[in-house]
Amino acid sequence: MKQSQLFLKTQKDFPKDEVAYNAKALTRANFIDKLMAGVHSYLPLGFRVRANVERIVREEMNALGSAEMLMPALHPKSVWEPTGRWEGLKKIMYRLQDDTGHEYGLGPTHEEIVADIARHIIFSYEDLPRSVYQIQTKFRNEPRAKSGLLRGREFSMKDLYSFHTDDESLNEFYERAKEAYKKVFKRMGLVAYVTEASGGDFSKQFSHEFMVETSAGEDEVMLCRECGFAQNREITTAKAGDECPSCKKGKLVSTTCVEVGNIFKLGTKFSAPIALKYKDAKGEEHPVVMGSYGIGIDRLVGTIVEVSHDDKGIIWPESVAPYKVHLLAVGAITPDLKKNAEELYTTLVAKGIEVLFDDREGVSAGEKFNDADLIGIPWRVVISGKTIEKGKFELKGRSEKEVKMVTEKELLDFFTKR
Amino acid sequence: MKQSQLFLKTQKDFPKDEVAYNAKALTRANFIDKLMAGVHSYLPLGFRVRANVERIVREEMNALGSAEMLMPALHPKSVWEPTGRWEGLKKIMYRLQDDTGHEYGLGPTHEEIVADIARHIIFSYEDLPRSVYQIQTKFRNEPRAKSGLLRGREFSMKDLYSFHTDDESLNEFYERAKEAYKKVFKRMGLVAYVTEASGGDFSKQFSHEFMVETSAGEDEVMLCRECGFAQNREITTAKAGDECPSCKKGKLVSTTCVEVGNIFKLGTKFSAPIALKYKDAKGEEHPVVMGSYGIGIDRLVGTIVEVSHDDKGIIWPESVAPYKVHLLAVGAITPDLKKNAEELYTTLVAKGIEVLFDDREGVSAGEKFNDADLIGIPWRVVISGKTIEKGKFELKGRSEKEVKMVTEKELLDFFTKR
Repeated sequence: MKQSQLFLKTQKDFPKDEVAYNAKALTRANFIDKLMAGVHSYLPLGFRVRANVERIVREEMNALGSAEMLMPALHPKSVWEPTGRWEGLKKIMYRLQDDTGHEYGLGPTHEEIVADIARHIIFSYEDLPRSVYQIQTKFRNEPRAKSGLLRGREFSMKDLYSFHTDDESLNEFYERAKEAYKKVFKRMGLVAYVTEASGGDFSKQFSHEFMVETSAGEDEVMLCRECGFAQNREITTAKAGDECPSCKKGKLVSTTCVEVGNIFKLGTKFSAPIALKYKDAKGEEHPVVMGSYGIGIDRLVGTIVEVSHDDKGIIWPESVAPYKVHLLAVGAITPDLKKNAEELYTTLVAKGIEVLFDDREGVSAGEKFNDADLIGIPWRVVISGKTIEKGKFELKGRSEKEVKMVTEKELLDFFTKR
Repeated sequence: MKQSQLFLKTQKDFPKDEVAYNAKALTRANFIDKLMAGVHSYLPLGFRVRANVERIVREEMNALGSAEMLMPALHPKSVWEPTGRWEGLKKIMYRLQDDTGHEYGLGPTHEEIVADIARHIIFSYEDLPRSVYQIQTKFRNEPRAKSGLLRGREFSMKDLYSFHTDDESLNEFYERAKEAYKKVFKRMGLVAYVTEASGGDFSKQFSHEFMVETSAGEDEVMLCRECGFAQNREITTAKAGDECPSCKKGKLVSTTCVEVGNIFKLGTKFSAPIALKYKDAKGEEHPVVMGSYGIGIDRLVGTIVEVSHDDKGIIWPESVAPYKVHLLAVGAITPDLKKNAEELYTTLVAKGIEVLFDDREGVSAGEKFNDADLIGIPWRVVISGKTIEKGKFELKGRSEKEVKMVTEKELLDFFTKR
């Protein structure tokens, strides 16, 4: 994409009304635009990062054997009543009425909806186990929406739901889902601790949260960076008086984390109240056993920025970067420079390499370098009158200091073989 | 995907509470599940069709040089006030209040939002023209939501917005967008008439609607199937007393259509009230000239079903079909049949061909054939004890009557060369 034609304008300064680094950097670099607290638009650069995050999540959920579906956001009151959550979630669920007096909620989660659907699909033990997932927009009346993409009032989640005959089948799937989650976060360059947590609103059993260390987080976690043991402080506190948690390495620290995912064993909490049942081989009916598995899509985008930046801007991991290469034509844009830069751009794109081409005229070299650092694309390629004289290009990794001079062949080899 | 593991259960009969064919067929074939009137979930088969529709739309919008973004659904009242549409759209916009008394609307469209964002991006004539689009969930308080996916209260739109210095630039883009739209609908197997229409709530100029003939439609259109001239009857009626529309072929008929897309020249209607301006080369300020371009994603899925089915079920065009091949293992599932069928399935998938494999045991051949016709995947491949004896497979197009016997090599050649 040519930067001169993109719907993009970086800002000179960080916004003054933001506290969280992800909000500051993503706004200044024009990845997002705040409509109101906790509600953001994704601009084209941000959209591409988000799409990459979604792609990684999709690939791992599909590899788990799950199929994608999509549920709505606007829910009738009736579907929330059997489980008691029309009342139970009233503090966080946005509600509205239409002119006929019917009441609706904007879904903060989808257990009730998916269980309702499953009643039309699951009848027998032969229909189990099954799992489905969606990547969908959720809403949550959130008074503390001040952390950029970390805590939204409108936000996107990947939520997966599994259906089983019994706990054994649920446990088997739960462990596989845990491994899939580890892969998701690792592929995005994140260190996520599998953390023991309470079941929250969903379950009386313990659940697991996937926690990434960052000062922007809102969760206190006891963890050992060596053995990986982690426990949410809410459990430790609840157990006060009992023994403290311990780990093999004995190097537990209390630290601040952001929760990027969670997995819950729901049991029959959502199936029993609406009679989501299956018949076993003898024809006897039992409630379906369920699990639920969430990943915060926007929160991942924000978390990556929190843990991967320097004083100049964002440093995107290649797996989620908006483009792989930021090509900068710097200095006076002579016809010769323009021709050479256009040719390289066309060649790179033809090789399937994703390039943002800063072809802007009348913008200083310094401004282009600063924008490139702020935007944080992994590889910067510079072409100028000087590099053309040498028959080479400048190549630099976003987090590297060293600039290499490379020929076009070396450049193409480098990117096509990565 | 193996059908035995998919979150899918076709129904024996059409639902009794639906009138529109798309609602009946998509429900019975388990592509969608109705949560309430005008609000549906997409089940895995339906999700794949929808994803294909989205992919085609994206490809053509990207080819137009537009970049994808994503705006939120939850809007503060303040952003709707300057244009007068907080009042003007009150009949169709769902509204809510939070416990602090703040008022919000669920967006039925995004002109106000995108113009607000553009104020942070467009400052000079050098920043123009630009265009951006999104595929996003919209809400509309809709009393007549009884046509399946044709008219939803929660629905997905592709909406594109363009920004220009003047009408000339807008007109140039408008014509290119019109051509892109024609490609979109043609690629989905639809005949869409470019129809003169009023500007509606958006514009006092005429606009163009893209109309597909079907008895399920709610628009009356005067059109000529030979020369392609089309005019929405709302214009003809408004002009009553003036001359009637005419076309070169003189074969105008009045017919029922569904509107799958529309394009509007907005002018400065949305830029002027919020001072979205640009500076020209002399430093003088002017309001930005805008256009808006919509395509109904869910409505397209529904429309394709309305125009492409027979008395047995849906006939998906290959470009949007949930899978390309429906592989049916029929008759008693002997170890030999199972082995041969699994091998063919694995071979097809390895070649990159999308296959739904009906590997269900204990389901009669007749039921599998009926399900395949109902679901409507373009190519049916049957393997049975008999076909194995002959060393061949049965191949049949969904809309063809003739069954061909083909070898594995012929089958693979057929699909890899299509």
